[in-house]
Amino acid sequence: MTQPTCWIYDTTLRDGAQREGISLSIEDKLRIAYRLDALGIPFIEGGWPGANPKDVQFFWRLQEEPLTQAEIVAFCSTRRPGTTAATDPAFKPILSAGTRWVTLFGKSWDLHVTEGLKTSLDENLAMIGDSIEFLISQGRRMIYDAEHWFDGYKQNPEYALKTLEAAARAGAEWLVLCDTNGGTLPHEISEITHQVVEVLASWNLESLPQIGIHTHNDSGTAVANALAGVRSGARMVQGTMNGYGERCGNANLCTVIPNLQLKLGYSCIGEDQILKLTETSRLVSELVNLAPDEHAPFVGLSAFAHKGGIHVSAVQKNPLTYEHIEPETVGNKRRIVISEQSGLSNVLVKAQSFGIELDRDHPTCRQILQRMKELEHQGYQFEAAEASFELLMREALGSRKTLFEIKGFQVHCDKRTEDMSNSLATVKVTVNGEEILASAEGNGPVSALDSALRKALLSFYPSIAQFQLTDYKVRILDGREGTSAKTRVLIESSNGQKRWTTVGVSTNILDASYQAVVEGLEYGLLLTEYQQNPVSVKLS
Amino acid sequence: MTQPTCWIYDTTLRDGAQREGISLSIEDKLRIAYRLDALGIPFIEGGWPGANPKDVQFFWRLQEEPLTQAEIVAFCSTRRPGTTAATDPAFKPILSAGTRWVTLFGKSWDLHVTEGLKTSLDENLAMIGDSIEFLISQGRRMIYDAEHWFDGYKQNPEYALKTLEAAARAGAEWLVLCDTNGGTLPHEISEITHQVVEVLASWNLESLPQIGIHTHNDSGTAVANALAGVRSGARMVQGTMNGYGERCGNANLCTVIPNLQLKLGYSCIGEDQILKLTETSRLVSELVNLAPDEHAPFVGLSAFAHKGGIHVSAVQKNPLTYEHIEPETVGNKRRIVISEQSGLSNVLVKAQSFGIELDRDHPTCRQILQRMKELEHQGYQFEAAEASFELLMREALGSRKTLFEIKGFQVHCDKRTEDMSNSLATVKVTVNGEEILASAEGNGPVSALDSALRKALLSFYPSIAQFQLTDYKVRILDGREGTSAKTRVLIESSNGQKRWTTVGVSTNILDASYQAVVEGLEYGLLLTEYQQNPVSVKLS
Repeated sequence: MTQPTCWIYDTTLRDGAQREGISLSIEDKLRIAYRLDALGIPFIEGGWPGANPKDVQFFWRLQEEPLTQAEIVAFCSTRRPGTTAATDPAFKPILSAGTRWVTLFGKSWDLHVTEGLKTSLDENLAMIGDSIEFLISQGRRMIYDAEHWFDGYKQNPEYALKTLEAAARAGAEWLVLCDTNGGTLPHEISEITHQVVEVLASWNLESLPQIGIHTHNDSGTAVANALAGVRSGARMVQGTMNGYGERCGNANLCTVIPNLQLKLGYSCIGEDQILKLTETSRLVSELVNLAPDEHAPFVGLSAFAHKGGIHVSAVQKNPLTYEHIEPETVGNKRRIVISEQSGLSNVLVKAQSFGIELDRDHPTCRQILQRMKELEHQGYQFEAAEASFELLMREALGSRKTLFEIKGFQVHCDKRTEDMSNSLATVKVTVNGEEILASAEGNGPVSALDSALRKALLSFYPSIAQFQLTDYKVRILDGREGTSAKTRVLIESSNGQKRWTTVGVSTNILDASYQAVVEGLEYGLLLTEYQQNPVSVKLS
Repeated sequence: MTQPTCWIYDTTLRDGAQREGISLSIEDKLRIAYRLDALGIPFIEGGWPGANPKDVQFFWRLQEEPLTQAEIVAFCSTRRPGTTAATDPAFKPILSAGTRWVTLFGKSWDLHVTEGLKTSLDENLAMIGDSIEFLISQGRRMIYDAEHWFDGYKQNPEYALKTLEAAARAGAEWLVLCDTNGGTLPHEISEITHQVVEVLASWNLESLPQIGIHTHNDSGTAVANALAGVRSGARMVQGTMNGYGERCGNANLCTVIPNLQLKLGYSCIGEDQILKLTETSRLVSELVNLAPDEHAPFVGLSAFAHKGGIHVSAVQKNPLTYEHIEPETVGNKRRIVISEQSGLSNVLVKAQSFGIELDRDHPTCRQILQRMKELEHQGYQFEAAEASFELLMREALGSRKTLFEIKGFQVHCDKRTEDMSNSLATVKVTVNGEEILASAEGNGPVSALDSALRKALLSFYPSIAQFQLTDYKVRILDGREGTSAKTRVLIESSNGQKRWTTVGVSTNILDASYQAVVEGLEYGLLLTEYQQNPVSVKLS
């Protein structure tokens, strides 16, 4: 028996980005889009081209380097009152975004038409119909988002249904019922969605559009509302990664997908792809620079954490006694004190990806795990910093080549007037037994440190000139200790062909940055050598 | 018409305290209990006396200074297999806790009886019945928590029902259906709760026990599950403040209560008491020492936050167009978010919240908007840094009092060996015409700067000693420029009663941090004065 499909529509890049504190560059948006594509999300809403110059460029960049499987979708509003769709300049950037699919949102609630748009109820119907017909005439396939659907339907069901019918008759393939204010409860979603499905069948349309559901978490029931919609006939769920979104957020797709796929028997993403759910959730949180929610269902660090001895041994005998699903099915892990087994496998899998063949029973394997756990306990994180992890592994294997030795650094910063600040760094490094002292200035202490180190090493390793720092992220590990808190720095470097990420941790942000910069340079210099010389560590 | 009552049972002090990172002293527990009492929660579970010496003392303390309205409840397990309840020493501390109500939990799932307790299915029934009868014979009123109810019922409904019947026949007044693993979805909760209600009626009991519901958030549906239980006949909801609890947490009572009371027409707490919901939620998060969830439904800082000019003016005309309830009904506030998209209306509304009355047409209003946009373009962000925004506004109005003048700083960091790094900061400040030079060390350059500044100002402004930095956030504004990128720092400060956030931006992370620290101290010192002296700027 084949499972019914439920289509996942991700709006992290538009609705998710409305969350306070999120501000995405075009590069961030692209990286998130490629990740969602790899996760197997079929529809990715990219933004509202024209409302924002960044969004226009984002769609152009995607035309140059398109996604593999996902449809990237442009989002826009109905045409303005009293015009025609063909002459409304707002549709120009939508068309130039060059997507196959467009999502158009329109007003379902009479109050919003008369008070918000200040136009007549009939003109609103024409705006919905015209806009959809025009975009279809330009070769687009259409999704219609019925804004404030549930509130509108409760106030004036007859008019709300007319707006849906206008969208359906104009040729929209999907009618998405939106709970824009997030105030609707699951039983209401069920009832109203059922009613829509019934009415829709009575319209005798040439081709029947499908229903979608878009929910917000203002009542704390966004996920349950999405599930209620699907159980009542919806076949598309709109939501965001980690539930990001305005106010209390949107339906969290990292919760919706496993509920639909593992519990309700719908097919959403590939069976291999759902294994990447946890990793993708955390990566997106890194990219938007928000700490991952440790208590998030399915993908949170604590989602399968077990305390206490009896409980733990019960879980190990029969995990189903204390776990609602197997954590591995979503790429998460059970977290118990004695989780060495899963840890070892991780080390082995990673090693393999670095071209290092390791025997599970080799003592070095346990040493690496031990060291990794110590460092993670101190705040290091190797999930996003694989270059640092490879260095750690090679060190344990005795195959980390020493290119230079760091003896120390000094940084001096000075600020006397509003506009004049001055940073000077000095580093001491030993290369081939020779001690080098190099100083450099920078527009901040970290860039001064980076420059000084490059200066010290350049004559020995000229290829350093090609390296670039492409990303620099700082996370405070325990914000509650204020400015004495530990800092974790992730640095991404590039040699123009390949990118790698390194990590540093310290209560001193300059020290943390320096660690990551040093490892970034070292890894870059050894990269080619490491790739060409696989290591094999076998038990004899 | 009187509203039906739904009884709220809070287990923050027991199940909530299972959350990783929470560790409560007796004082903390008492403070939380008194707050919950004031909120009008009828049942407060205080802990498991005997399982934990702290819990015994906590109950004794409450006997000395009892709660006003709430019932404090002791929690315990059924007697051990093969003994009698009267001789089981575990019940001694339960009785000495001196509560009128006791909650006893027992096994519903056959697998847990045979594999976990290693006893027979019949003995488990006897354990439930005996324990309840014994505690009732000692004058207690009983609540029975059916652990793993939903999983057990799905596996072996017949046996699960026998356990409930044993509790009911022994005299339990409440039978609480627990979704201990949190894996059940709302539609299953509805079906099974309905079935229980029907079966219960067929038992011909002398007095019919009522049904309760206890849910966890592993499927992201704890709140919806609690509501589904109530809609199917449950009249008690067990949950925790802010949803604290093991793994993904328990049903969040701060979400459950307003949904039940404002949307579903149940009476839970007094109409005056629900006004304290937001305040109580934040206070509990302070007491357990966790940052409040800003995006929490109903009570979060962002729950009623609005961005963007058009949207804001619509909300002001008719809040229901963009809000599912009035924020004031739960003691929360509408928040107009200041951001790049902001228009004049946002500035005016914000000014009002600072006690500043501004005329829309006054030139200062446009100046403030202009200045804010310039700064945001440079990378400042006032969305989260309202204290900095108030300072900016008061500066434009000429009402920003100069407490001290910053002349400059110097920072020196030194790292020579792996473990030894040293940071020294010197600041120069003028206060009342007097020039102060102060130096301090720290475990990083930012904490050294912070200490030096406090040292310089302390003798002039002794109240600085009460200020604490409670959060420190760093964001790199364009990571692609690597370590030369601009840095934005947000610092949250507290005086023990109020928190405020300030912002700094610079390519030099130390400079950015310094700006935010300086404004944080300034704002803290002026806070009381600003609150007591509203400003009015009117066109003449």
